Amino acid sequence: MADQITKRSENYSQWYNDLVLKADLAEQSAVRGCMVIKPYGYAIWEKMQRILDDKFKATGAQNAYFPLFIPKSFFSREAEHVAGFAKECAVVTHHRLMNDPDGKGVVVDPEAKLEEELIVRPTSETIIWNTYKNWITSWRDLPIICNQWCNVVRWEMRTRLFLRTAEFLWQEGHTAHSTAEEAQAEAERMVQVYADFARNYMALPVIVGHKSPNERFAGALDTLTIEAMMQDGKALQAGTSHFLGQNFAKSFDVTFTDKEGQQQYVWATSWGVSTRLMGALIMAHGDDNGLVLPPALAPIQVVMVPIYRKPEELSAIVEKMVAIKKNLEAPGVSVKIDDRDNLRPGFKFAEWELKGVPVRLAMGPRDMESGTVEVHRRDTLEKETMSIEGIEAHIKSLLDDIQKNIYDKAFAFRASNVEKCDSWEEFKEKIQTGKFLLCHWDGTPETEQLIKDETKATIRCIPVDSFVCDDKGVDIYSGKPSQGRVVFGIAY
Amino acid sequence: MADQITKRSENYSQWYNDLVLKADLAEQSAVRGCMVIKPYGYAIWEKMQRILDDKFKATGAQNAYFPLFIPKSFFSREAEHVAGFAKECAVVTHHRLMNDPDGKGVVVDPEAKLEEELIVRPTSETIIWNTYKNWITSWRDLPIICNQWCNVVRWEMRTRLFLRTAEFLWQEGHTAHSTAEEAQAEAERMVQVYADFARNYMALPVIVGHKSPNERFAGALDTLTIEAMMQDGKALQAGTSHFLGQNFAKSFDVTFTDKEGQQQYVWATSWGVSTRLMGALIMAHGDDNGLVLPPALAPIQVVMVPIYRKPEELSAIVEKMVAIKKNLEAPGVSVKIDDRDNLRPGFKFAEWELKGVPVRLAMGPRDMESGTVEVHRRDTLEKETMSIEGIEAHIKSLLDDIQKNIYDKAFAFRASNVEKCDSWEEFKEKIQTGKFLLCHWDGTPETEQLIKDETKATIRCIPVDSFVCDDKGVDIYSGKPSQGRVVFGIAY
Repeated sequence: MADQITKRSENYSQWYNDLVLKADLAEQSAVRGCMVIKPYGYAIWEKMQRILDDKFKATGAQNAYFPLFIPKSFFSREAEHVAGFAKECAVVTHHRLMNDPDGKGVVVDPEAKLEEELIVRPTSETIIWNTYKNWITSWRDLPIICNQWCNVVRWEMRTRLFLRTAEFLWQEGHTAHSTAEEAQAEAERMVQVYADFARNYMALPVIVGHKSPNERFAGALDTLTIEAMMQDGKALQAGTSHFLGQNFAKSFDVTFTDKEGQQQYVWATSWGVSTRLMGALIMAHGDDNGLVLPPALAPIQVVMVPIYRKPEELSAIVEKMVAIKKNLEAPGVSVKIDDRDNLRPGFKFAEWELKGVPVRLAMGPRDMESGTVEVHRRDTLEKETMSIEGIEAHIKSLLDDIQKNIYDKAFAFRASNVEKCDSWEEFKEKIQTGKFLLCHWDGTPETEQLIKDETKATIRCIPVDSFVCDDKGVDIYSGKPSQGRVVFGIAY
Repeated sequence: MADQITKRSENYSQWYNDLVLKADLAEQSAVRGCMVIKPYGYAIWEKMQRILDDKFKATGAQNAYFPLFIPKSFFSREAEHVAGFAKECAVVTHHRLMNDPDGKGVVVDPEAKLEEELIVRPTSETIIWNTYKNWITSWRDLPIICNQWCNVVRWEMRTRLFLRTAEFLWQEGHTAHSTAEEAQAEAERMVQVYADFARNYMALPVIVGHKSPNERFAGALDTLTIEAMMQDGKALQAGTSHFLGQNFAKSFDVTFTDKEGQQQYVWATSWGVSTRLMGALIMAHGDDNGLVLPPALAPIQVVMVPIYRKPEELSAIVEKMVAIKKNLEAPGVSVKIDDRDNLRPGFKFAEWELKGVPVRLAMGPRDMESGTVEVHRRDTLEKETMSIEGIEAHIKSLLDDIQKNIYDKAFAFRASNVEKCDSWEEFKEKIQTGKFLLCHWDGTPETEQLIKDETKATIRCIPVDSFVCDDKGVDIYSGKPSQGRVVFGIAY
């Protein structure tokens, strides 16, 4: 089965595509750029959703739902936003089909043209701030901390499953505050929620930082990001949190009366992660045998495969497996017994490896006699024969080990591919080999653009966490003074 | 607060609208026919989703996600489906905006016209069966039991919040089977899941039955429905489950090799409930003071309101409330302490009644002295002063009582408004007074249509449950022989 997958060393990009398809995560649909998320892929996304949703609610967020469509004119209101967003999008112009006068199929009814075109939301700041206008009059109405889980559409020209699709699923938080400080604190709180989720559930070491002005969200005063390194050394932006200042409040005239009775514009943030996280998960941990899922997000954490020749052997083994399954499910471990009778064990092993199930148990007649079970871990591909006695406790702790090991491996990989760089010649060479380079930057968009033009590298972030280097220096490209190092990388 | 709501007896329809708005459930958006579901309304929908999702999964369903857009040509494939569905819908014709040459705002880029128009899904049978074609080759690939939670759009001319909106949220299950019997059993299983959910969580007595051919889903061989009675005696179709035969398999050429090696078309079902359930919940149980929520779906089950004059009184009361809250939350009761300092208790009482919170506790300084608390139940508006000692157990059992009482009340209301009718003159009169009439019908679409033209009444269903009446008779309108009674009503 693994031989259906291109090796990473041969073609990393093809390896990714093969894996998404062969592991039954997603596929292209009949509609250009829109994917079908298959049950196994969706089950992982659901686990992500549930964990993130609980975390959002713990910070005080409430879910709501805003319209799919946005009147075209709304995009003209916030000047930067329209420049950054409103271009490649799905435009609804009509509201009716009619039978083709030629009698074949259906055609658009020319009589049913909309007065104003509607845009399928590429993001919802405009429609939400138009709504908030009616919700906010006094400081007592603030803060508003709303989140929505929904689909959005951006008409991307080049699409890749999960990483860049015309339609994708995401959550978008939109918050309204009475002071700039409170809004900034919210944007920082949420990027840390994302970082915590990435590290502790996705087993993904991420760098937290600010985007440079060039890479900011259209309409934001500040964009915070979590940046992850994939196995080819490229950067993947995995989540962003924006401090929007009063831009949208001013565009949609959203004011409140403060405690002193003064009218003020409301301060805003927005923050989101999407099904792109699925791409990050796959690319960060997968190997040439397939997916490697962190136990915290694996829909099936333990798979059991019976090894047998005769039907009566099967029933005895399955009986034992059912007992172990029950004991594992009690504390919340998800278990599947693969008792399909038309497939050989070797095929099943390969299939569950491809699907990234963290732990595999195999039991045959000899195991039944000796009271043992073969335990295989997906992350290291190691196997061990163990006593069935106490196996549940062992598996619980093994799952924790695997979670930690996957993170540690990704962390070590990144650690060996991040370095300081102070020479432009070195930069040009090293950045192409798949590294994050910590370099001095003069703070100007012009220099960043020149570096990008020459190398495709962008500033992934101005780090706020352990990556902060406070040595002073001069810009690697322009030679002008720099206030500190930033993270350069080539991004997905 | 209740005085902001029209009385049911004055104008039931206006009462409904007032309630949806004043209880902060939903509101109209800037986009015609599309609603904003506000956090309090969405919290109820989330509870519905969670319970239904667990029930679906218990039957073996898996969630997946299919594209928002459907190529226009897909709607021409299934002849009946196109007739019933593809007309009033949102049509995407372009994929880009550009700056207005006049420099004001944005316009649609005429160069960016799609080769084939895309329809925003009004339901997903076509795109899903086009996908299933690639998933199914052998009987071993069956059954497929997929569900998706998503938004759909039907360009309704007259919209009402929750009941009929251009965009709404729903779930749609789409299953594929190797035999007709298995597919029929699936359709029946799922309508019973809906009925169980309606009765036990929504406290909504529903009648389960088959739709008459006139009222069937476009493309179905059989449609099963749950029909609820609202307080005005009108019927609300609350969920449907369709046996689709091989229609979609034939239209999209989906075949499988059966155990005998023969190629066969696949059998299908689809089933769905939507945010319309919110409308049913509101209309079935609300009263002139506002919403009445069954405890099983109430985002807040118990609200506590402190009564005090001096700040030091407040802190002692709140301390006690926090202790009770903790004890209630341990077994899963959701509790809110309303300690807002700018509102009087009477205002808070009215607000939480409006929002339908099942139980309200009020405590003042005198209660603190005597170790008592005032317990108010929303469904009957009765209040009682009780000892704080053991209050948690009392509330737990009170919530069960309320759940049951709300159901019983709705059941009694319906019982008093359903009757057999064998006279056409009587029918015409009684059907306008808000009743379900159990009548003989000759089984022809023509008669049903004539009855509808004259009275607006339709066959809500041919019941399969306790409403089955097996007395023989003659059609109430045509006088032709009838095989049994059906449920007539005027529907939302």
